[in-house]
Amino acid sequence: MRMRNKPWAMDFLQENNSIVDIDSTYSGRVGAFFPDTGPLHVEVGTGMGTFITELAKKYPDINFVGIELDKNVMIRVVEKVLESGLLNVRLVLLDANAIDAYFRNDKVSRIYLNFSDPWPKSRHEKRRLTSRSFLEKYSTILDEEGLLQFKTDNRGLFEFSLISLNSYGMDFHEVKLDLHADEPEDNIRTEYEEKFSAKGNKIYRIRASF
Amino acid sequence: MRMRNKPWAMDFLQENNSIVDIDSTYSGRVGAFFPDTGPLHVEVGTGMGTFITELAKKYPDINFVGIELDKNVMIRVVEKVLESGLLNVRLVLLDANAIDAYFRNDKVSRIYLNFSDPWPKSRHEKRRLTSRSFLEKYSTILDEEGLLQFKTDNRGLFEFSLISLNSYGMDFHEVKLDLHADEPEDNIRTEYEEKFSAKGNKIYRIRASF
Repeated sequence: MRMRNKPWAMDFLQENNSIVDIDSTYSGRVGAFFPDTGPLHVEVGTGMGTFITELAKKYPDINFVGIELDKNVMIRVVEKVLESGLLNVRLVLLDANAIDAYFRNDKVSRIYLNFSDPWPKSRHEKRRLTSRSFLEKYSTILDEEGLLQFKTDNRGLFEFSLISLNSYGMDFHEVKLDLHADEPEDNIRTEYEEKFSAKGNKIYRIRASF
Repeated sequence: MRMRNKPWAMDFLQENNSIVDIDSTYSGRVGAFFPDTGPLHVEVGTGMGTFITELAKKYPDINFVGIELDKNVMIRVVEKVLESGLLNVRLVLLDANAIDAYFRNDKVSRIYLNFSDPWPKSRHEKRRLTSRSFLEKYSTILDEEGLLQFKTDNRGLFEFSLISLNSYGMDFHEVKLDLHADEPEDNIRTEYEEKFSAKGNKIYRIRASF
């Protein structure tokens, strides 16, 4: 997700450093970012933040961490968290490649990937968030019963991901090839999901563990 | 696939026993069924036989075995093979459960499942041709580099199969979630495939090995 550059973005994020970590202050001690202890769920790439804030409302005993690289997008997520008054969502301005270092001392029980950039050209395969090098990182931070949940409307990316997760030796718990056809009650639609579903795109979802 | 019962079916098949094996004559010595030696490809559930006869025309150096349980359906396949004059297609009237015994001495290099019965009720799960007990049988007859190719338009069955093959430890080589969107040149459409694709159904395909 790209947004217009806001020159004041870093200042705004800095002012809200109780909600968003912009300089890896909580790296290696993510639990300390939250007032209460609880299982950690992580969304890699928050987009506008609807998914993670809705989840956090629904599950007040779980601590949610949203990772987003784009500071202009992050502003919107911070605003959402401020409006909601939620204490169990915290945000990190971070490249997904650094996820294993950031969570090196904190076990995560779920990782969510929602409508990640498909990087359709094969020379960009390594940038896809379900490629082998990312799975390696996730495997080091997920706890033993931890789940990776991935949702997309991009057929090519989902085909690639099925092969990538299988080839890494992950166990598939659930595969949905048309999530909205018989929508599970626990599904929280993202902004992208609403938009692309309305266009008639199928929504795919997989849950898998290491 | 069900067809009206033809009382003369067994007589017709018996008369054509150079093409169709109705009493497991070639069990344990499938190679002897063919005039020429060659790699064996097996289709489990031939339906009307378009797929296997088209494949056999395209690959004259491969020997194709079509397995079908329904004698009334089998008549149509025998007729197709007779019309074509093909020497590299042979048919076996057999329950798919007996596939491992039938091929116990013959290594198979490819198994095709096309639009298999979805058996949607969970109590019938074991009857699905991609369920664990069938995968076990396929694994005993496929050679080391052998591939299982499965094609269907049934979303529930494909979702089940992705999980079943993954859970069995199979390696996914290819997954297509809309085969006709960018149809591979090597795809041979079955009768079912034409019909359900025309209705707007997506066609799914996976290739995997043990």
